Amino acid sequence: MTDDNLTELQRHIESLVEEGGVDELQAVLGRLHPSDIAALFPRLGRLEQNFIWDLLTDEVSSEVLVELEEPAQEELLDQLSEGEIGRLVDELESDDAADVIGTLDDDKAQKVLETLDDESRRDMHRLLDYDEETAGGIMALEVAAVKETDNVRQAVNELRDLVENEGVEDIYNVYIISEDGILRGVLNLRQFILAPPDTPVSELMEGDIVSVPTSMDQEEVAVIVRKYDLVSLPVVDDYNRLVGRITIDDIVDVLAEEAEEDISIIAGTRDEEPGERSTFKVFRERFPWLLTGLAGGLVAATIMNYFEATLVQIIALAFFVPVIMAMGGSTAIQSSSIVVRGLATGEIEIRDLIPRIYREIRVALLNGAVLGIILALIVSFWLSEVQLGFLIGIILLLNICIASLLGASVPIIMKKMGIDPALAMGPFVTTMNDIIGLLLYLGLAMLFLT
Amino acid sequence: MTDDNLTELQRHIESLVEEGGVDELQAVLGRLHPSDIAALFPRLGRLEQNFIWDLLTDEVSSEVLVELEEPAQEELLDQLSEGEIGRLVDELESDDAADVIGTLDDDKAQKVLETLDDESRRDMHRLLDYDEETAGGIMALEVAAVKETDNVRQAVNELRDLVENEGVEDIYNVYIISEDGILRGVLNLRQFILAPPDTPVSELMEGDIVSVPTSMDQEEVAVIVRKYDLVSLPVVDDYNRLVGRITIDDIVDVLAEEAEEDISIIAGTRDEEPGERSTFKVFRERFPWLLTGLAGGLVAATIMNYFEATLVQIIALAFFVPVIMAMGGSTAIQSSSIVVRGLATGEIEIRDLIPRIYREIRVALLNGAVLGIILALIVSFWLSEVQLGFLIGIILLLNICIASLLGASVPIIMKKMGIDPALAMGPFVTTMNDIIGLLLYLGLAMLFLT
Repeated sequence: MTDDNLTELQRHIESLVEEGGVDELQAVLGRLHPSDIAALFPRLGRLEQNFIWDLLTDEVSSEVLVELEEPAQEELLDQLSEGEIGRLVDELESDDAADVIGTLDDDKAQKVLETLDDESRRDMHRLLDYDEETAGGIMALEVAAVKETDNVRQAVNELRDLVENEGVEDIYNVYIISEDGILRGVLNLRQFILAPPDTPVSELMEGDIVSVPTSMDQEEVAVIVRKYDLVSLPVVDDYNRLVGRITIDDIVDVLAEEAEEDISIIAGTRDEEPGERSTFKVFRERFPWLLTGLAGGLVAATIMNYFEATLVQIIALAFFVPVIMAMGGSTAIQSSSIVVRGLATGEIEIRDLIPRIYREIRVALLNGAVLGIILALIVSFWLSEVQLGFLIGIILLLNICIASLLGASVPIIMKKMGIDPALAMGPFVTTMNDIIGLLLYLGLAMLFLT
Repeated sequence: MTDDNLTELQRHIESLVEEGGVDELQAVLGRLHPSDIAALFPRLGRLEQNFIWDLLTDEVSSEVLVELEEPAQEELLDQLSEGEIGRLVDELESDDAADVIGTLDDDKAQKVLETLDDESRRDMHRLLDYDEETAGGIMALEVAAVKETDNVRQAVNELRDLVENEGVEDIYNVYIISEDGILRGVLNLRQFILAPPDTPVSELMEGDIVSVPTSMDQEEVAVIVRKYDLVSLPVVDDYNRLVGRITIDDIVDVLAEEAEEDISIIAGTRDEEPGERSTFKVFRERFPWLLTGLAGGLVAATIMNYFEATLVQIIALAFFVPVIMAMGGSTAIQSSSIVVRGLATGEIEIRDLIPRIYREIRVALLNGAVLGIILALIVSFWLSEVQLGFLIGIILLLNICIASLLGASVPIIMKKMGIDPALAMGPFVTTMNDIIGLLLYLGLAMLFLT
């Protein structure tokens, strides 16, 4: 559905609500995908939202709730009672249900859990116990598994039962387990269709199967799914027992989230959502980075104040402070972003620290030499300050080398220390770079030019 | 496979190659997934690579070729003859095959195409004609489609034929088409298993089906797949005839690519790959951004040179140039990155320009006021320059507002003009911001303080 269609639909629905055209409204909503209703929802006023919400079946409104973007979802959850949320959660697959409960505050979550039946409550507790960003945190418990002693006909009957009674919906792969629940192998659904019904599943199954433990970080899970082009991935406990499955649409969300996270680290927007309407909430997300920048800038001002005598003597030195600082910052982010990406995809590893530094320094020497010569020539001719030009050129070269060294090594060292390497692209490292560049610049200038 | 495992495997294979242990090597390779072999490949020397390559079957080595990261893939393709590439291409699904041919230079691609049989060649020409970053460019032609007049039994037989004779491998959904190839609906494989064999497929099928035209941009395709949680998506021509299908693993690659593209725009690394080993190639990717930064810095220097008299008179003005520039740059990237993300997910649209600017300005006023007051107080007390402090505070506020305005509006305007809005996070806009901030700062200081 395009933006224009959505706008048209919005108008249509608004006028139907005004006229109180319940039957036609219900017909219009019935033709929409829950995702479309979720896209439309934040555009409507409170009145229209309530009107529509009451017309949706639980099956549809639970999906709408899951598909809503964060600020709108939060607003909606604030308005729903614990009982209503419990009823909607019951309609959802376990991973989505746990996500919804996970966004509630502890008190409300507790009350929602109390409205569920024993089995669902136990399932939710199990899922909520896992760290949100691990395989356990993103997996669903509804998994299509059949016993290794089955033949195809028996397996199909078991699957039918799972679909009809256990809420298993999306089946891409059927897992084969032992009597004790140990994961033995996998069968593609296609094979069920093509094989004779009395073939034992153990004969058809692929036994060499990729699985992940519940504790694996979701980013690593995403790397595995991408690497092996998987559509679904079984999750196992410490004893290799099948406990859940992750489907690729969850991985798509993980990838999108991680990409947004990386950009939000570089840009300093933290958890801000594009749809957030509260000025104060946006302010709260953005302010810390700007404050760090201000602090960094004040350190720079202190350094320049310290070198005041030198600056007064050669005011032209001040002109090139922005160049030196910008070049250091740019170089550092180039080196660090490539290393962060390489670490995320597995193309760069911790043991590659030394060769990586070596490679970065080679590139930095080349960039620094070319840019240093250009800057030296321009300063020499423009300001007729050959000595200054020469010095600035050399400082630029040094600065680019140091920035590259830090940019390439900090993420690898952070990864080794168990810290998210993406943070190396954040304000702290960038600011540190600025300050080192400035000290180097003014310090050497004072030494050699005054 | 973890890094440590990979390193161990590398050693094992190197020693086997040295000993010439062909049988054992073949056994080891046979147990590996093509993706693992591809991960291992760039770590080996030329000798080991050739040794291993010759031991792989075409079926495996074609997959290894596809899974190799870019620099290693290019190196390998350079070494293979047109005939060999043609043989490997024949093993691949059409979308992967077209990707491989698409990376060759025109001359070699032509020669490879000549080695293919008529049907494959026609298929490749069809796929290569589409823009690489559109639905047509990423779709595969092998699609599981059955006629609307079939019943389940007939459809299963047709599917069996497609799998056995047409190279259709991954089936998630079965599409239902009319006599003329018009897309009518879709069936989940699960429904084939659960339905009685004599049910007409037209009775089971879901007729309200999401499809995309061949010309749709891959980023939009990714938005649709994410929005509707699809596992595969049919691609249709202008007459709504089914021409291919996109599977979610292709979308995972699109998302990863687009995320990398956005970060490479911010960081100025263009098409650099983490695994690239040539110093000169890396230099070539990074240099343009650094040169833009240098040019921007020189413009800044020119501006400061113009205001030399003011700076000499109040040297303290120079101390805060880095603060003013850094704050403007940070604010602009905060605003633009949120807008770019919102545009990519559809949460922000072109028609939202005015409300978005209004929202950004509110946030900027709040940030600017708080930061401006902090800066004004620090400058007033630290340097005992109350007038300067007051002025710098106000300029910071103004600068943050302007940067926000540009940061939020430029991407939306670019999108309207059909330019990739992500470019608004690139060096040109950032540099422009620096310069506006500096002009504002020194201009107002000259007006009010001298």
